[in-house]
Amino acid sequence: TRQYRITLLPGDGIGPEILAVTVDILKLVGTQLDIDFQFQEALIGGVAIDETGKPLPDETLEICRSSDAVLLAAIGGYKWDNLPREQRPETGLLAIRAGLNLFANLRPATILPQLIDASSLKPEIVEGVDIMVVRELTGGIYFGEPKGIFETETGEKRGVNTMAYTESEIDRIAKVAFEAAQKRSGKLCSVDKANVLDVSQLWRDRVTLMGKKYPDVELSHLYVDNAAMQLVREPKQFDTIVTGNLFGDILSDAAAMLTGSIGMLPSASLGLEKPGLFEPVHGSAPDIAGQDKANPLAQVLSAAMMLRYGLNEPKAATKLEKAVLEALAQGYRTGDIMSQGMKAVGCKAMGEVLLRI
Amino acid sequence: TRQYRITLLPGDGIGPEILAVTVDILKLVGTQLDIDFQFQEALIGGVAIDETGKPLPDETLEICRSSDAVLLAAIGGYKWDNLPREQRPETGLLAIRAGLNLFANLRPATILPQLIDASSLKPEIVEGVDIMVVRELTGGIYFGEPKGIFETETGEKRGVNTMAYTESEIDRIAKVAFEAAQKRSGKLCSVDKANVLDVSQLWRDRVTLMGKKYPDVELSHLYVDNAAMQLVREPKQFDTIVTGNLFGDILSDAAAMLTGSIGMLPSASLGLEKPGLFEPVHGSAPDIAGQDKANPLAQVLSAAMMLRYGLNEPKAATKLEKAVLEALAQGYRTGDIMSQGMKAVGCKAMGEVLLRI
Ligand SMILES: CC(C)[C@H](C(=O)O)[C@@H](O)C(=O)O
Ligand SMILES: CC(C)[C@H](C(=O)O)[C@@H](O)C(=O)O
Repeated sequence: TRQYRITLLPGDGIGPEILAVTVDILKLVGTQLDIDFQFQEALIGGVAIDETGKPLPDETLEICRSSDAVLLAAIGGYKWDNLPREQRPETGLLAIRAGLNLFANLRPATILPQLIDASSLKPEIVEGVDIMVVRELTGGIYFGEPKGIFETETGEKRGVNTMAYTESEIDRIAKVAFEAAQKRSGKLCSVDKANVLDVSQLWRDRVTLMGKKYPDVELSHLYVDNAAMQLVREPKQFDTIVTGNLFGDILSDAAAMLTGSIGMLPSASLGLEKPGLFEPVHGSAPDIAGQDKANPLAQVLSAAMMLRYGLNEPKAATKLEKAVLEALAQGYRTGDIMSQGMKAVGCKAMGEVLLRI
Repeated sequence: TRQYRITLLPGDGIGPEILAVTVDILKLVGTQLDIDFQFQEALIGGVAIDETGKPLPDETLEICRSSDAVLLAAIGGYKWDNLPREQRPETGLLAIRAGLNLFANLRPATILPQLIDASSLKPEIVEGVDIMVVRELTGGIYFGEPKGIFETETGEKRGVNTMAYTESEIDRIAKVAFEAAQKRSGKLCSVDKANVLDVSQLWRDRVTLMGKKYPDVELSHLYVDNAAMQLVREPKQFDTIVTGNLFGDILSDAAAMLTGSIGMLPSASLGLEKPGLFEPVHGSAPDIAGQDKANPLAQVLSAAMMLRYGLNEPKAATKLEKAVLEALAQGYRTGDIMSQGMKAVGCKAMGEVLLRI
């Protein structure tokens, strides 16, 4: 029996519902494959603010650190939107990324044949799209100093943030990306704004240098504006993309939306050591929270990424992925991906379908 | 007779060809409407580097300053791609924006019914899309200090750029955007990353404050990652968008690509005073330069923007716009927008069609 300590962070909105479904299927797969998951729950986001005043209580960070993997659902909601930034749910997310040193964010954007019509793009354009965005997650303008709102000599305010990367920060994310590309189709596109930004020039130089160590990976470079265009124009040209924190935030969301079904997309955030953090790309959807309408599949696929990238349990990962594909193949759909002729189910019922498969 | 001094900056690649077509039609419209255009040519971009060593010679800036409007074609090419940044064509573009204080960049993304099939998005998604992106152009991370590549204490390199905005910089671009929205459908969406960036928080606060002066404009705010998604998902929800320099670079290109025919899109860059600068969104296309294959229509539409926004000659502007629409209606197409059953023409022939209309 392999034993793993998994920290569950249900968070806000639909978080608890989709995580409950996921825990059930993890337990089942654990029994089948002789894996003993030990779950412990902790607070993050709005619910943590309400109970402790902080979006990431110290205790939560400690519990996460002592576990093998962290499974996060979703955070945020209207209720906390107007608090000062230090007390906002998002700040908890940034703090846990920094606190666990999760510098590598993997965001697949894969189009499933059954859901191709959900895309706003023409089917022939998105058919077969399978992109992996590797986003740097603990550096760049998200964390660079100086930052703040300062007074200028003339007495007016000036808002400032700093986009900065050191060579070693670039090298370690580049390494993750080259290795990901190697395991995929062997094509890596690095995205920057080196025609304008010094930090991008350093980024491009270091990625190019790292490329010499991976002669089997075909490396290309695009400016971020062009990358945004090319994603819309012909997404199939991309396989693995590597980029900084801010550009990755924008491009991974654009890539996700190409699929038309953001309720299906998982993500993994990894450091050099355990634990990694695994969460769906979609948000907390406060408008449908508690109504048994949420789509739990991105959360289940996030658990699959946890098994594959965080715990090295590829067999169990495949079981989860197959269950999701099979549920779709059998025609089960939550509201967000419903289409004519399919079987509409709620969150819990989708969970039961997965357990039956 | 109204007299205007127009500086022509043909630049590189297909620039000279598309500008020649545009000058011919401007001359014709001038004769028809009793406008006397006085054209003077100057160097910018790669051709300026080759002749003077600088991407924006001082003389060019002086000529521009003494004119009523600047009509730029395109800059850049493979030949200059590996020079140090100070000697690159793009640097000339940044320098002329700063030198003429062109803080407001207007980038329409309009889908023409005749070209709807060129889009990679489904026709029902893009039909009727008519977006105006108002991008701040002389501030933000493009120009913020400190910037450069520095050595850290541990001896490794660190690339740094600064994203900064003062209140007055935000106010003046917000004003342009609210006024543009007023003249359009009365909807303005401001895009920032206020959940993470201090500079965006100041941006959001000032835009909100400015909104009080425009009660007839419906103001909304989106985070940049969400804006990128929404542009792909349902572009029709947008009318006028206002955002900073970097986000505007990315989003205006994504919006442009939704139309599928970037060879059709013009742009205007304005300051508080004359001259404004007007240029197509597309680049210099070095691969087809000198072959009479380029699409001159974005350049002609840029001249229309010059007439409308730079010289206050709306009648002449409308004449140019109508000529372009009529040429398309008659089935004339350059290679980039060619489709079955249409009449393929080169750059010069397209120009002759426009003169005939
Ligand atoms: C919520 C926000 C702080 C976060 C980010 O910008 O990283 C989110 O957009 C994401 O991509 O995970
Ligand atoms: C060429 C480059 C410097 C420029 C920019 O980033 O502003 C271009 O992409 C644009 O949008 O006009």
